[in-house]
Amino acid sequence: MSETQPLPDTLRRALADQPHGALCVAYSGGPDSTALLHALAQLPAARARGLRALHIDHGLHAESDAWAEHCRRFCASLDLPCMVRCVAVATQRGEGLEAAARHARHAAFAAELRAGEILLLAHHRDDQAETVLLKLLRGAGPEGLGGMRERRPLGRGELWRPLLHAITRAQLHDYVAAHELPCIDDPSNADTRLARNRLRHEILPRLAAYWPQAVDSILHSATLSRAAADALRAQWLAAYATLHDAANDSLDAAGWLALSPALREPLLDHWLHAHGLPAPTTAQRAQIERQCAARAGTAPCVRWGRTELHVWKNRLWAHALPPTVDPAWQARWRGEPLALPDGGRLMLRDEHARLPTPLSVRLRQGGERIKPAGNAHTRELRDLFQQAALPPWQRLACPLLYEGDALVAVADRWFSARGRELFDEAGSRPLWLPAK
Amino acid sequence: MSETQPLPDTLRRALADQPHGALCVAYSGGPDSTALLHALAQLPAARARGLRALHIDHGLHAESDAWAEHCRRFCASLDLPCMVRCVAVATQRGEGLEAAARHARHAAFAAELRAGEILLLAHHRDDQAETVLLKLLRGAGPEGLGGMRERRPLGRGELWRPLLHAITRAQLHDYVAAHELPCIDDPSNADTRLARNRLRHEILPRLAAYWPQAVDSILHSATLSRAAADALRAQWLAAYATLHDAANDSLDAAGWLALSPALREPLLDHWLHAHGLPAPTTAQRAQIERQCAARAGTAPCVRWGRTELHVWKNRLWAHALPPTVDPAWQARWRGEPLALPDGGRLMLRDEHARLPTPLSVRLRQGGERIKPAGNAHTRELRDLFQQAALPPWQRLACPLLYEGDALVAVADRWFSARGRELFDEAGSRPLWLPAK
Repeated sequence: MSETQPLPDTLRRALADQPHGALCVAYSGGPDSTALLHALAQLPAARARGLRALHIDHGLHAESDAWAEHCRRFCASLDLPCMVRCVAVATQRGEGLEAAARHARHAAFAAELRAGEILLLAHHRDDQAETVLLKLLRGAGPEGLGGMRERRPLGRGELWRPLLHAITRAQLHDYVAAHELPCIDDPSNADTRLARNRLRHEILPRLAAYWPQAVDSILHSATLSRAAADALRAQWLAAYATLHDAANDSLDAAGWLALSPALREPLLDHWLHAHGLPAPTTAQRAQIERQCAARAGTAPCVRWGRTELHVWKNRLWAHALPPTVDPAWQARWRGEPLALPDGGRLMLRDEHARLPTPLSVRLRQGGERIKPAGNAHTRELRDLFQQAALPPWQRLACPLLYEGDALVAVADRWFSARGRELFDEAGSRPLWLPAK
Repeated sequence: MSETQPLPDTLRRALADQPHGALCVAYSGGPDSTALLHALAQLPAARARGLRALHIDHGLHAESDAWAEHCRRFCASLDLPCMVRCVAVATQRGEGLEAAARHARHAAFAAELRAGEILLLAHHRDDQAETVLLKLLRGAGPEGLGGMRERRPLGRGELWRPLLHAITRAQLHDYVAAHELPCIDDPSNADTRLARNRLRHEILPRLAAYWPQAVDSILHSATLSRAAADALRAQWLAAYATLHDAANDSLDAAGWLALSPALREPLLDHWLHAHGLPAPTTAQRAQIERQCAARAGTAPCVRWGRTELHVWKNRLWAHALPPTVDPAWQARWRGEPLALPDGGRLMLRDEHARLPTPLSVRLRQGGERIKPAGNAHTRELRDLFQQAALPPWQRLACPLLYEGDALVAVADRWFSARGRELFDEAGSRPLWLPAK
């Protein structure tokens, strides 16, 4: 054993600063997590609060069963519990494989973590430098260039990378060698088809040959980028609270456009993600900004994938495009919850109420008219929609309720005298939930 | 000539967007600036507003005279004026040489630029990607990772890089080849001891082999980083206006400490640079923050190089350390401007006034006392200094004015009855300007 003990010393200090929570090591069997698990197992303070290992079997390699067995044996030798979880990874080439494996692994971690438990990952300084370079090669801003976070909530517990800023890969490998620890040599780590390994084996050694402080510098850049991203995040969250109308999920277009670009972009992404929608490309972002600045009343629209973003009534509206709707669709309805073809729903406010006679639900063909109860004149639906400011992209999916060939109700908005009579008899009113 | 003309097209559009100002091309004679100069010379719109070339002779190479002559000939062939300026570069090794040459070059540019003239640099997309990587390898935050600015004020005019986002090195070299333009082949460009060339020839080709979009991605990261830095800059400038007391050049320590780290760091650097002082290291920064948070009254101090930063009276104070002061120093003074040994100055407010009798100016030895005019008691200087909140680091350099062995004035603050009489006779009061 060497004289200095950077790994045990770092862990001892880190645990003292973080006194609560049982510990669960994400243990792949490779040298990094083997060193972390072994060093923790030597610390009475770690065992006292509960210490276990969690091994994820990705099933990507012929020997993955043997690896899981190796992990069980090593944990038994340390007298530690070891849980093995199998996950399914969608196999792709290059970067995609690593990303897919990571997603499957993190989902399993989140599911397995107990309440208040801390998942420890063995990521170290060199891993962080690789992550920052990968983010740069993907065009990330300060949030991405900030690299991995040292800690964040995960499932019912927390994720923690206690070695991220303090320990190098070489220090972990020295520890493994000094204690002669058995490790799995996953051949995929030498596979330079994987983006991270390409950086690790081809790029970083060449950088370090000329810039010996390359990793230190990259980590310092990451710290400054993280600080900038956090400061900006606090600001765009505050702006979001002002610009977002929770009642209809729209954003103030002029207010959004007036923000500095550094706030505008993450705010839009945050809003879209809250809708389960993906972020636009840079070109689409520029298009949205141009349309916000354009004259009102043109109701422009930007589409990417199945996402549709409208600038309408000086506000931004986003939704996923519905499946293509068959205009000839119709359904018989007595008040039970009804799925509309665009993903929206129609029901009665009182879920037990039923109409005295079945109605036919159809979609708009154009030219429909209704004489709202109490109104002197028959009105065109087009005019009613406009006056009521029904978003244009919802108009084609709006359910029209017919008794025979007579239009008696337009969704939950307008009723003929006969329509009102029917819902009075049912003792409830309709409720239309448009597709998000 | 090729069918597409990215360089002339880019320049034509760029000039249309920037219709004012004479054009001065920074022309090294290498392929990039040769292409820029030649393409501009073909545009009547460029010639019409005034177009000339400026060549800087760094004197770093045996053939630099011949290069200057080449530049003169090429400009003559285009019928354009060419100015050659020689600069002196402090020769160092590696990165230092390139940085020193750049500093000397930019100083010459700033000096030579006419009022309202625009200096055009041929920096292109690949140059920008190299700059961003170099900044990352120096641990820069969003400001540095934002890369070169497309435009900024320079001397009496402006600096502009019209190709920065639009044109690649390959496009410029294609242009040179298509027009068979004569170029200087500066051998230092192939010298991989120079940091930038190391990136250009060793690192970026390897990145591009695996990440074909590497330059696009790095440039996108730079744009996002620049936007973040600009947004933060607007904020810390606003905070600076609040926290900085222009009357005594100090900063509110608690207010500064309460800022987010992303604002705290650039604000401090801005304040120090305004004093002509260098920025602290990360470790010194952490020390300053700890001392701001410490109990008041301890007057702690952080030093780096010749910079001294004090936390005193809940404010930050910074100054350059004076040359070591000889406590035995003294000078004879009748009111003329007097240089004090720490770099401060003593004078009379009325520059033409003189004292009726010469005084002796000395520095504090400790234990001095004075009976201020109108005061019933003799006071210790120590107590006077404390009550007047004279910064401790100024107390040793405070000029004490003696008539014979009698202390008659303490700088411009306290006067004995005899001191007051003397300055009344002179018809003026003293003025002490402590060293910054």
